[in-house]
Amino acid sequence: MDRQTHSSQLGAAFAQHYYSTFDHNIENLGSLYADNAFFSFEGNCVIGPVDIMNRFRSMGFSQIIHKIFTVDAQPGPVEGTHIIFVTGQFAIDGEVDKPHLFSETFQLAQQGGSVVIINDIFRRVSQG
Amino acid sequence: MDRQTHSSQLGAAFAQHYYSTFDHNIENLGSLYADNAFFSFEGNCVIGPVDIMNRFRSMGFSQIIHKIFTVDAQPGPVEGTHIIFVTGQFAIDGEVDKPHLFSETFQLAQQGGSVVIINDIFRRVSQG
Repeated sequence: MDRQTHSSQLGAAFAQHYYSTFDHNIENLGSLYADNAFFSFEGNCVIGPVDIMNRFRSMGFSQIIHKIFTVDAQPGPVEGTHIIFVTGQFAIDGEVDKPHLFSETFQLAQQGGSVVIINDIFRRVSQG
Repeated sequence: MDRQTHSSQLGAAFAQHYYSTFDHNIENLGSLYADNAFFSFEGNCVIGPVDIMNRFRSMGFSQIIHKIFTVDAQPGPVEGTHIIFVTGQFAIDGEVDKPHLFSETFQLAQQGGSVVIINDIFRRVSQG
């Protein structure tokens, strides 16, 4: 299997797992992030699982549903790294008729035998 | 300057330069890509500046205007790498009243003293 195909398969599985965890077991998200992971949410960056989880908890929704439109993936700069790029929509607290478009970029890396998130950048996408 | 701030400054300058080159000197874009750069355009991936430039030339527009909404950046997995994440809109052939939303992720790396693109993933963003 070539590197590009490997990244694509890993990316698809990762995105499925990530957003399913987000929607159903949000407290488990922290374990997906590396100790020094960067997370940028609408332009504000925090570092590490503790601050990332605090950021999620502060978002103030009680329910969220993500829908994935596209997942692209490429091999990163060193062995075991992959960039995953997702577009989709999400709805909060049952407002399924008012979904928000988003796109999100992850970089994954091998750490101690596991695949963890080292970069995560999230933006809602709307007319500027 | 911390790594995050350095990436942000580099990201802002890169995005300005990249889209200005795209809009005004598209034939110069090839020199911004590493020899083994990956470029995914709407799910199709090509590798290297020659195939990337052929992809741009095959898009069939005679004029394009990008407008950047947001630029986020983070340090990548190894020294000298940076992820740059852009949202914005573009209009082709003067259709400024029909802009298309897009988001695009780059990864930059040092190569022979220059900063080059090693990853590029582009998607238009619209309701799925």
